[in-house]
Amino acid sequence: MIYLDNSATTPLCVGAREKIEEAMDRFGNPSSLHFAGNDGATLKNEARDVLYRALDARKDRFSLIFTSGGTEANNLAIFGAARAKRYKNPKILVSDSEHPSILEPCARLAEEGFKVVKISTRGGMLDEEEFLSEIDGNTVLVSVMTVNNETGAVYGESIKKLFESAHRINPKVICHTDAVQAFLKIPLSPRLTGADMITVSSHKVHGPKGCGALLVSREILKKKALLPVVCGGGQEEGYRSGTENTLGIAGFGGAVHENMKTFENDMKKVAELRTYLLCRLPKEVSVNLPAVPAPHILSITLPNIKSQTALNFFSGKKICVSSGSACSSNGGHRSYVLRAFGLDDFQADSTLRISLSKENTKEELDTFLEALREGINQLVRFKSV
Amino acid sequence: MIYLDNSATTPLCVGAREKIEEAMDRFGNPSSLHFAGNDGATLKNEARDVLYRALDARKDRFSLIFTSGGTEANNLAIFGAARAKRYKNPKILVSDSEHPSILEPCARLAEEGFKVVKISTRGGMLDEEEFLSEIDGNTVLVSVMTVNNETGAVYGESIKKLFESAHRINPKVICHTDAVQAFLKIPLSPRLTGADMITVSSHKVHGPKGCGALLVSREILKKKALLPVVCGGGQEEGYRSGTENTLGIAGFGGAVHENMKTFENDMKKVAELRTYLLCRLPKEVSVNLPAVPAPHILSITLPNIKSQTALNFFSGKKICVSSGSACSSNGGHRSYVLRAFGLDDFQADSTLRISLSKENTKEELDTFLEALREGINQLVRFKSV
Repeated sequence: MIYLDNSATTPLCVGAREKIEEAMDRFGNPSSLHFAGNDGATLKNEARDVLYRALDARKDRFSLIFTSGGTEANNLAIFGAARAKRYKNPKILVSDSEHPSILEPCARLAEEGFKVVKISTRGGMLDEEEFLSEIDGNTVLVSVMTVNNETGAVYGESIKKLFESAHRINPKVICHTDAVQAFLKIPLSPRLTGADMITVSSHKVHGPKGCGALLVSREILKKKALLPVVCGGGQEEGYRSGTENTLGIAGFGGAVHENMKTFENDMKKVAELRTYLLCRLPKEVSVNLPAVPAPHILSITLPNIKSQTALNFFSGKKICVSSGSACSSNGGHRSYVLRAFGLDDFQADSTLRISLSKENTKEELDTFLEALREGINQLVRFKSV
Repeated sequence: MIYLDNSATTPLCVGAREKIEEAMDRFGNPSSLHFAGNDGATLKNEARDVLYRALDARKDRFSLIFTSGGTEANNLAIFGAARAKRYKNPKILVSDSEHPSILEPCARLAEEGFKVVKISTRGGMLDEEEFLSEIDGNTVLVSVMTVNNETGAVYGESIKKLFESAHRINPKVICHTDAVQAFLKIPLSPRLTGADMITVSSHKVHGPKGCGALLVSREILKKKALLPVVCGGGQEEGYRSGTENTLGIAGFGGAVHENMKTFENDMKKVAELRTYLLCRLPKEVSVNLPAVPAPHILSITLPNIKSQTALNFFSGKKICVSSGSACSSNGGHRSYVLRAFGLDDFQADSTLRISLSKENTKEELDTFLEALREGINQLVRFKSV
């Protein structure tokens, strides 16, 4: 198998596996007050400490709330902040290419009376002027992702400045960034982003699926400006109830521990692979190149081949690529992200995402390139309707 | 270690471990459209099929929505049903001894204008007359657990009749049962409970933590009477977004597969163990015996010993018991469940829960009984304030 779909999910790394194996034996409920419970709680606390270090965040300034994944962390950020305080005419600002786990909660809130404004990200750049002109006294929340999952556009370059400006215009605004595709791919911290809340996910960094976290400024919690989405026994300081996914949390910690120290070198290697691929693409292929690209994602538009057809062709050759984000591709919807980037419907329907990890090699990319050339010859001729 | 806290959580069984190991290698995102994705989806579908069989539920009549656990499934049942339709004066009926993952969402809904009525469960029996008198045209939802997690009271004996009556009085009422403590302990199915929605959890049946499910009648989904709590990419038929916890789901399926066939014999054994213990308790101990007891839970009140003191004493001897549910014990709150059962504050603060599994032995219970006698002699004399 040649796996070039690392933005959809990643294989488990050794560090994650080892911690999962350990967690399988230490089965106590972290909320239980006996020694078996302590044992379970220790695992969770170890993972939490690793996450704090990887995010360069101080425990006294930030709370780290483990969730069932990036989607739930994003839901907690959006619903939690929106529902905590009732403004008269509450407003939320997001980019027009956020993940569905941001946009769907926003759509629900729009039904409940919130004004939701989507800022353009044409060409992979957030429209700063539009963004700043929309911040006002009614703005409860802004949420802009650090790295886009379909184009690899790094919005994070401008986020810190924008979030700081937003705080200046309205000190009550809560700034959130969905950093699922940025964590351990580009440098990430509250200081570097200026964000009050940051979403990260385990299975994008070689940890298990079903685990993520929301880093939240303690200032927000003090002001009671975040309501939990899942309520009950009061785990995670009351912001996320439910017996903890100890295997997932331990594995997340194991993956981050293994990858955090080498990630800058790893990403240099990944960026080199991406450049290698970029320079060898057949001339029929056009590249959707954002202003600031992430090291691991490459979006290409094929000549007159539906992405689904191409994806099946590659899958038959045991090569995994994606026709968009795994989340939205399942529904078979046309990518609103690629439309926002500037592609027309026809181009959006003919686009593939190649997403790399440090496990990939130039040899794998050569095989992919060969298959790509073969596919273009075969599929354009007998093109699907 | 002698583990007598199986209602808090259970150790992983072999069947769960094997499936988790398998899932660690089959890492594809179930939503990805290539073969690696199919591989992930297959694991999930296998587990889903096992759950359908264990719950004796038909796929064409019920949808099975995987969640991050019992707490989230309960939140989905309560918030999901309550927020889907706007009645003028919406009302929710629950028992007064539901899990916090039912009562906390109800408290939130009460703030939003819902009328929440709590029905008495004194002596471990749901007050049927009170229940039926409260069902009216405004009643959106009733939720009564099948087995209580602190007393082991089986409310399920009367649930079917009550749910049927509720449907007769108001055909639009949605009936939910939190069966987390009932699943694979007593016979459970939509037919046996008359419920439209059933919550189950993995880690109470020797599966991993962080996974559960809500079984929902397709009639409810057709009527659009359930809104998702976690929104995004549209996984689980749109009712639970987020990349699936494949390790958790596979392990849940593995645990259920291993335990479903033998559970009736296993529970006979567990009930015998419970009786063995019951008959040998020191005379100073009083038993909180519900009208219909579950086979695996025994609630006892100690003479003038705070449960926290006793718990620490047992923990020092590597014996795990609980002072209440793990979920609520963490917060150090007095048990409202034991108060609802009929205990006074003093008794509630001196109560222990012993919860058994088929892995326990008479020898372990003998050791516990010995420690209990020793504890009573030691701790009553030097009693904590």
